[in-house]
Amino acid sequence: MANGYSTVSVFIIGTEITRGIIADKHGQLIAKELTTLGYHVNRITIVPDDGTIAPLLRDCVRLTDIILLTGGLGPTSDDMTRDVVAELAGVPLVRDEAAFAHLYGRIGERIYGANLRQVMIPQGFRIIENPKGTAPGFAGELPVEEGSGEFRHVRCYAMPGPPVEMHEMFYHRILPELAQLTGHEGIGRNEYSCFLTPESRLEDLCSECAVGPVLWGTRVQEYRISLYLNGGTSDQRSEMASRISERLGKGLLVPGDVEVVDLFTRLLEEKGLTAASAESCTGGLIGKLLTDREGSSAWFWGSVVSYANDAKVRLLSVDETTLKTHGAVSGQTVVGMARNLRELSGTDMTIAVSGIAGPGGETPDKPVGTIWIGYAVKGREPVAVRLQISSFGRSSVRRRAAIAAILLGSFHLNGADLLDIVGTWQYI
Amino acid sequence: MANGYSTVSVFIIGTEITRGIIADKHGQLIAKELTTLGYHVNRITIVPDDGTIAPLLRDCVRLTDIILLTGGLGPTSDDMTRDVVAELAGVPLVRDEAAFAHLYGRIGERIYGANLRQVMIPQGFRIIENPKGTAPGFAGELPVEEGSGEFRHVRCYAMPGPPVEMHEMFYHRILPELAQLTGHEGIGRNEYSCFLTPESRLEDLCSECAVGPVLWGTRVQEYRISLYLNGGTSDQRSEMASRISERLGKGLLVPGDVEVVDLFTRLLEEKGLTAASAESCTGGLIGKLLTDREGSSAWFWGSVVSYANDAKVRLLSVDETTLKTHGAVSGQTVVGMARNLRELSGTDMTIAVSGIAGPGGETPDKPVGTIWIGYAVKGREPVAVRLQISSFGRSSVRRRAAIAAILLGSFHLNGADLLDIVGTWQYI
Repeated sequence: MANGYSTVSVFIIGTEITRGIIADKHGQLIAKELTTLGYHVNRITIVPDDGTIAPLLRDCVRLTDIILLTGGLGPTSDDMTRDVVAELAGVPLVRDEAAFAHLYGRIGERIYGANLRQVMIPQGFRIIENPKGTAPGFAGELPVEEGSGEFRHVRCYAMPGPPVEMHEMFYHRILPELAQLTGHEGIGRNEYSCFLTPESRLEDLCSECAVGPVLWGTRVQEYRISLYLNGGTSDQRSEMASRISERLGKGLLVPGDVEVVDLFTRLLEEKGLTAASAESCTGGLIGKLLTDREGSSAWFWGSVVSYANDAKVRLLSVDETTLKTHGAVSGQTVVGMARNLRELSGTDMTIAVSGIAGPGGETPDKPVGTIWIGYAVKGREPVAVRLQISSFGRSSVRRRAAIAAILLGSFHLNGADLLDIVGTWQYI
Repeated sequence: MANGYSTVSVFIIGTEITRGIIADKHGQLIAKELTTLGYHVNRITIVPDDGTIAPLLRDCVRLTDIILLTGGLGPTSDDMTRDVVAELAGVPLVRDEAAFAHLYGRIGERIYGANLRQVMIPQGFRIIENPKGTAPGFAGELPVEEGSGEFRHVRCYAMPGPPVEMHEMFYHRILPELAQLTGHEGIGRNEYSCFLTPESRLEDLCSECAVGPVLWGTRVQEYRISLYLNGGTSDQRSEMASRISERLGKGLLVPGDVEVVDLFTRLLEEKGLTAASAESCTGGLIGKLLTDREGSSAWFWGSVVSYANDAKVRLLSVDETTLKTHGAVSGQTVVGMARNLRELSGTDMTIAVSGIAGPGGETPDKPVGTIWIGYAVKGREPVAVRLQISSFGRSSVRRRAAIAAILLGSFHLNGADLLDIVGTWQYI
């Protein structure tokens, strides 16, 4: 590459991995993204937290242009990354005052001695902020003597090990920087968020919908999959995204880094509406997701988790005849739950969910994954819609039932016809 | 170890892995099995099929006792493992006649030149049969000069990359041999689960409570920290665990791989009791955690997430005067929530939680992290207990409030005095 950066060595630090307790996932994720950008990954090395990294890094700088490290940035004595890098760079560790102020803001007087280690970085390096945790990352250059007094500089990036922190830092700070370094400012990249779709299905769709030289990568998160389209022209990437979106169905692929919960809560805030939920199979997950958001008390009244039928009757006055005739998993039941909760709570809208999360509990006409979702909105007739979610286990069905209920809640607030939306969903 | 074999370095060869196309799974599998046998895995390195392995192996032999290689044994020119090992051993490649006969038996006259490469091994090495494929593995010793003409020998095993072939060879040939080498004496190891405690605090406690040669490691999970004590005698590990447990407080460190939710739900199942919850700041998380368990419908009635004060009044008949006089975060409120829900639901026990998850909402005497937890159990007076959880952010406070409520629920069901328990909790 024009600027001379091309070979990358990746180091993953974690004794849980070299002891086989957990599997490393960072290596593949980093390798995939960097390969897409045109880098050559010449090794992924996993080492324990015991300083083994030191001689390996020393040997490695001779053979690479860029070093990426994950892990070993925590507060404990095992977390030696910063010491090892400082020693290799031949500089002392110094306290970064901005990082100290940030950590102090987060945890205040509980900054123990151990926590303080987290705001030390090798002198001359710069902090990379960690919005999802306490340990910042850092970046800088390691001098390598090339003989006859000449020096070459190896770029070095250190990231925390916990996936949620590492992903944020890698995707939003380090990867953009490395993309720019390749001089491929021309390598365009778009990010999308995909909901409710199994990963294997999305991968197949990407193959089927490929356009020209556009490459793709996916990242499975707890409540969605991030899809990255790289290369080609902006039009080609848009074309590919449109094709995938059309195949998936309405509203399941949206541009950007977006959670379904945010789509819904932003809409409530914009419209100045209040809401409540009535849950059965999701067991409290909808309430949990909505109240994860700071400030949710401004618009969230509560969630009635009526798990047992008796709870549906006592808490939500669902008609016992309805339960007997149509069952707890039925349009009539979720409409009753939504309507009665709206009356009880006085909120502007309610969401109700009842379904078969499994294992067990299915009937011939209601297999595992059958989900009924109902809505009651002030001044409108209550509605209900049925979904059939493919079962990848109890936890997956519950997660997708909650996400579908919140996503369709946004559509319903915007006046869309739910049957029209759900009818286009092919692969949930 | 008596025989001097202890440190193992693992190399995985495969360009599909360093390009991020597939994930490596051999590394974890090998690491786990060898760790169990008492070996120390000092690195798992993944390299492309391009010969990068050569300098890494050369550097590695100085630092290890055993080398395990997977991949690079196929018939193509990318498959360089046998050449690299032969060069490092300082011997030529020779044809193994038994392997040749075996391959001939399998593919007969279709032995091409390329296939023939597969029956070449470094001179002095021995073949390891591959019942599932064409490329045999091999094993032998690499001499390492230790200075002053002394040599040490590093054992080297090479296995094919395809999982079905590698698994057969690893489990049935190589692992038994490595187990015999150790005399089957794994180092002792105990696992514990630690609840509610910040990682940095647990780490400090481990340092303070260290016993003899016992080493420790921690793994942060979503709702607990796993603590591993390794080495020393069984008595020494128990002594260290007792010391840590005493410093943490009652019930916060338990032996084994245990979730708080399981402690509670097992107790309900044993005693044949039903339960319900009333939540405020946890927003549904308690219901979600309890219903994560299959079969929870046998004992779980539901959860009333009364997030707004109005919901506490309407759903749970909490006295408005109580809310006004003592506030939503008070012993009186959670006792009211628990007692009224028990009457309404007819369950055997109820858990109620109200607290300040932040950010914001605190008062001078109720800072962020103030949590009140109440219980109502059939035939007993309702009780409430106050906790002050140190704040590492909204999500952490909510998680720990839910876990504390479920954990104390077990103690309460067993008749323990909650103030007595909570009074010993030093570092939550």
